[in-house]
Amino acid sequence: MIRLECDYTEGAHPRILERIISENLVQNPGYGEDEHSYRAAELIRTASGRPEAQVRFLVGGTQTNAAVISACLRPHEGVISAEAGHIAVHETGAVESYGHKVLALPTMDGKLTASQIEALCAAHDADPTKAHQVKPGMVYLSYPTENGLLYTKSELTAISAVCRRRGIPLYVDGARLGYGLMSPKSDLTFPEFAALCDVFSVGGTKVGALFGEAVVNCGAFPQEEFQYLIKQHGALLAKGWLLGIQFETLFEDGLYWEMGGRAVTLAFRIRDALEELGVPMPFDSPTNQQFALLSDSALRELARDFAFCPWGPREDGRTPVRICTSWATRDEDVDALIERLHEMKDQL
Amino acid sequence: MIRLECDYTEGAHPRILERIISENLVQNPGYGEDEHSYRAAELIRTASGRPEAQVRFLVGGTQTNAAVISACLRPHEGVISAEAGHIAVHETGAVESYGHKVLALPTMDGKLTASQIEALCAAHDADPTKAHQVKPGMVYLSYPTENGLLYTKSELTAISAVCRRRGIPLYVDGARLGYGLMSPKSDLTFPEFAALCDVFSVGGTKVGALFGEAVVNCGAFPQEEFQYLIKQHGALLAKGWLLGIQFETLFEDGLYWEMGGRAVTLAFRIRDALEELGVPMPFDSPTNQQFALLSDSALRELARDFAFCPWGPREDGRTPVRICTSWATRDEDVDALIERLHEMKDQL
Amino acid sequence: MIRLECDYTEGAHPRILERIISENLVQNPGYGEDEHSYRAAELIRTASGRPEAQVRFLVGGTQTNAAVISACLRPHEGVISAEAGHIAVHETGAVESYGHKVLALPTMDGKLTASQIEALCAAHDADPTKAHQVKPGMVYLSYPTENGLLYTKSELTAISAVCRRRGIPLYVDGARLGYGLMSPKSDLTFPEFAALCDVFSVGGTKVGALFGEAVVNCGAFPQEEFQYLIKQHGALLAKGWLLGIQFETLFEDGLYWEMGGRAVTLAFRIRDALEELGVPMPFDSPTNQQFALLSDSALRELARDFAFCPWGPREDGRTPVRICTSWATRDEDVDALIERLHEMKDQL
Amino acid sequence: MIRLECDYTEGAHPRILERIISENLVQNPGYGEDEHSYRAAELIRTASGRPEAQVRFLVGGTQTNAAVISACLRPHEGVISAEAGHIAVHETGAVESYGHKVLALPTMDGKLTASQIEALCAAHDADPTKAHQVKPGMVYLSYPTENGLLYTKSELTAISAVCRRRGIPLYVDGARLGYGLMSPKSDLTFPEFAALCDVFSVGGTKVGALFGEAVVNCGAFPQEEFQYLIKQHGALLAKGWLLGIQFETLFEDGLYWEMGGRAVTLAFRIRDALEELGVPMPFDSPTNQQFALLSDSALRELARDFAFCPWGPREDGRTPVRICTSWATRDEDVDALIERLHEMKDQL
Repeated sequence: MIRLECDYTEGAHPRILERIISENLVQNPGYGEDEHSYRAAELIRTASGRPEAQVRFLVGGTQTNAAVISACLRPHEGVISAEAGHIAVHETGAVESYGHKVLALPTMDGKLTASQIEALCAAHDADPTKAHQVKPGMVYLSYPTENGLLYTKSELTAISAVCRRRGIPLYVDGARLGYGLMSPKSDLTFPEFAALCDVFSVGGTKVGALFGEAVVNCGAFPQEEFQYLIKQHGALLAKGWLLGIQFETLFEDGLYWEMGGRAVTLAFRIRDALEELGVPMPFDSPTNQQFALLSDSALRELARDFAFCPWGPREDGRTPVRICTSWATRDEDVDALIERLHEMKDQL
Repeated sequence: MIRLECDYTEGAHPRILERIISENLVQNPGYGEDEHSYRAAELIRTASGRPEAQVRFLVGGTQTNAAVISACLRPHEGVISAEAGHIAVHETGAVESYGHKVLALPTMDGKLTASQIEALCAAHDADPTKAHQVKPGMVYLSYPTENGLLYTKSELTAISAVCRRRGIPLYVDGARLGYGLMSPKSDLTFPEFAALCDVFSVGGTKVGALFGEAVVNCGAFPQEEFQYLIKQHGALLAKGWLLGIQFETLFEDGLYWEMGGRAVTLAFRIRDALEELGVPMPFDSPTNQQFALLSDSALRELARDFAFCPWGPREDGRTPVRICTSWATRDEDVDALIERLHEMKDQL
Repeated sequence: MIRLECDYTEGAHPRILERIISENLVQNPGYGEDEHSYRAAELIRTASGRPEAQVRFLVGGTQTNAAVISACLRPHEGVISAEAGHIAVHETGAVESYGHKVLALPTMDGKLTASQIEALCAAHDADPTKAHQVKPGMVYLSYPTENGLLYTKSELTAISAVCRRRGIPLYVDGARLGYGLMSPKSDLTFPEFAALCDVFSVGGTKVGALFGEAVVNCGAFPQEEFQYLIKQHGALLAKGWLLGIQFETLFEDGLYWEMGGRAVTLAFRIRDALEELGVPMPFDSPTNQQFALLSDSALRELARDFAFCPWGPREDGRTPVRICTSWATRDEDVDALIERLHEMKDQL
Repeated sequence: MIRLECDYTEGAHPRILERIISENLVQNPGYGEDEHSYRAAELIRTASGRPEAQVRFLVGGTQTNAAVISACLRPHEGVISAEAGHIAVHETGAVESYGHKVLALPTMDGKLTASQIEALCAAHDADPTKAHQVKPGMVYLSYPTENGLLYTKSELTAISAVCRRRGIPLYVDGARLGYGLMSPKSDLTFPEFAALCDVFSVGGTKVGALFGEAVVNCGAFPQEEFQYLIKQHGALLAKGWLLGIQFETLFEDGLYWEMGGRAVTLAFRIRDALEELGVPMPFDSPTNQQFALLSDSALRELARDFAFCPWGPREDGRTPVRICTSWATRDEDVDALIERLHEMKDQL
């Protein structure tokens, strides 16, 4: 079985494991106060062109989102998100469990626009009964989005400008940041990206680490509060050096970006084959996640050897699936899939 | 200025005030453990045909909704509501502040349907990643709705049936119950209504009381827990007899229903005039709230003497307004409005 | 039965009821945006010597405490309180239900001291693992305390000074403020009291109103946020003029203070009788609540005609009770109690 | 520097790392639905004699405690804990952040007693105003406690009996379970221990794993709810096999217990030396944590080569410290410490 259902089926890049092994019996202070975490933070500050930022490492994406959002908001405030945003639909109400509403906006493709954010904020401010409503207190988006899409520099600049004018922080969830910024379709460098965010995360779990998300706080909330919140959210790893050493490895010589780019290249090979074979693709994704509407019979047959992720309800004899590459995807597995698709071309 | 903007501009029916005055210097036990509260509860149990129900009195609607919803749900569960539901948009995230997501469903007219509730529950149950999503744990709707509409007996029966099949309680917010059940368009008696609910409220604030909502718990949650939750929610009135005596007055000889019916009659007089004059009306409301799209110039002129409530954004030179009667609306004020509308007929 | 168990057995001072009656059919805007609320706020600002303060009116004490505390704290912060504080033991965890810990400090008599607050804050700041602990974020105390005691000017000044040095707000719960400041033992004027608080409440429920607490925010939190929080907490009364008109009546000519002083005078008559008769009194209360250790046999007999409130567990054949006067206590009832006590002197 | 300050300075037992390495590029399903997690769960069910129990793996202790406690309680309920309990003082209010009060009971030595739990529950039930108070809804204790102490079989049996009689679950935090059950002073087998709990955790982080806590739910809450809560709490590891494989390694041939026992043996060597040298020891700990009151001068000198953990405030020229062994402590480091202590015997 070749699994292309998601980008977290394997463990970590071998260099990460080597580093953990070599450090395993060294005694490190706990809770992120170790040299590896300090150095990893510094590497990320430098790479992102955010020398003043606070960088802390958490274990997983849901706890990262909940902790950052709690840090940004007052009790009566909510977080603006696309209706399809991860916090809106795939985190079992973690944001709400800390008391905040997700102000979910409808979108065509999963991407928020500056104008709809501005419209929501303006409508709120103008409403004489606004105190009966949740106040928009921040914006959440992910780069890439749930559907693998990217905001252009111009789109993200416009959203950032609205947020700054309205005085609300912009938080960008970068769970797949490496696959986003390394897409040939991305028109943003890491520093350009970082300059538009008030706080963002850099995802390790899906890009070559065993686990781990770096939070880069560029002034969205007081730095001295965040360690309390990480602990309160149950997100403070005792052996924090495990996070530090992974991000150190990812960022000391560009391994993070290299893995990101490679996965996108493999995804594009799959995309090109699907397009050539005329398979309908609901999103034009420039990243490591590709989406295809396969005929039910083709899917049944493919499912014997390949695992994809169902992505929405079946319609008219076709089922939407996500096909996902990652840092760990093997060239020969992509070859095998493409070959099989060609063999099945009349059935897709 | 004649205020028709909402149904809570005046105090209470004079008989209620008289009863409070006569009881004012009597010493009553606190927190709802008084004879008036007990008798009022019994009157409501009898009137609703729910002899086993627990009836408790709270001060306001938002605290009532939040307390009932907290009582019904487990931490990972959310409450299904129409997108336009009061809990979804007009309570500053009170439900979320207690940790629960509002699962807001889009509607044409503000009314949920049994089939969309069933579809949501079925989709959740069928989803292999359902634990990543908030579980539908109850249904919230209001009767009448925010737009003054009523569920028919058949609609409410279907919704109730879905809830019972799925094992989730149906909570009906009856903030304006008197205006709903006394509408000539309602095809439900109070006992028929109550039999379909697992928990419901009977609103006093908008129907003749100074304030107060009765919660009728027909088994939606354990009776012995509710007093704790009322207290925790800051909703336990020290001088609970003030609530008891009001509902006693409302329910001992049908005053509640009488006031409800009178207000609907007045609202229909306004509705008929508007229709006769060809004013567009976005909702065909059978209750005390009527909605009209008035021309901006007409609204400006009317606003000198009449207060209405804006109800959505202005469009094409017209502004939607809510025109609301209540138990306290005077016949002569309705006469005056209708007369004025006729005078302005070319301008509406 | 003469009820002296608490200070909320009756309704409201007759002048308050008269005012409500006379306003009953006047149409007022909702949610506290009426002339009575505005004027009442202004009267309180003037009386307290806090011309810049925000004054808002809520219905009850628990919701007032929870809303104020939510407004003051960040998510990782807790509220310092005496172990016997109302928020610590008598509000069903309302503070916790909004996510905050009550940092309960042990006391001899229910009164916090400046030095223990300072010690807690200093210990927290000095702790290298402080982020694993809840940060002290504000101080809560009540004046008078649960046991009827008062902070002296010097004690309250010292607590206020610690709070200001530490940058954390001092919130004083004045649910019985009238009985406190009007005690002959109080050495604080209302403006002196107000000058030491960052936010405080003025209780109406126990001092002559049907219900209602005024919150006076002297800079503890941003004024523009509070209406949202009041609504979110379910504490925004639709007919807010009911609160406004009550506080207007209480503060326009000193009725609040007059009632407070009268109740204390009556309580002192009871206290003097108990002392004269040698009944042990666990607290030397200078306010309207008096505490006596009555023999079980005396209590049984007295209970036929007088209701007191049990106040802790029975010990050695004696039961502690609270005997409480209020604005509504009748002279003849106090006479009757004292007479009875004298008759029973060998049995007390 | 030899670090004996805590039991989480190193990584994992080498066999665990070997297993992770060998599995690293195998494709596993996510979120705990992998063969390693299933097998690890089965091993724990068998070892604990709880064949029906639900076993799930979480990353860290704070998230484990918060998730379990949320799963056990209704909104108005709190969790009974010793005042010194980890949830009461070292988790930044995580329990409160989910809405629940910690009902902290004072203890002499950090251990709860059955009688104080019974007394609290009985007092609550008997209180006519109980709905104004948080209801005791479960009991939390840790084995070993924060101070390294153990409950005897008889003590734990009595506590379990109270909980079952009162109908509230007993949750035992086993963050250091291996060091507890393998103490020569423990009179409980793992199945005996497990039989007394309604839910308990088996800590990996401090006993040889990189990280990870197993939760064993023996009926304390509905099994089908827990995955939702794990996700909501941000505690669901994407690559859940990392947890599964660690616990598989720990439990397939007794490695967990072997490491626990070895660390206790080393701790006893340190304890014996301290006792022999007459160093005061505030707790008579039978586990891997030992507590000594060292003179300030001795501590200063020792601190050049040994790291201990300060454990409370300095008094009379002495400082309490925790000296902690773990699965990773080297014999030669213990030798070095003991030798040094003997050299400094006049100064301790």
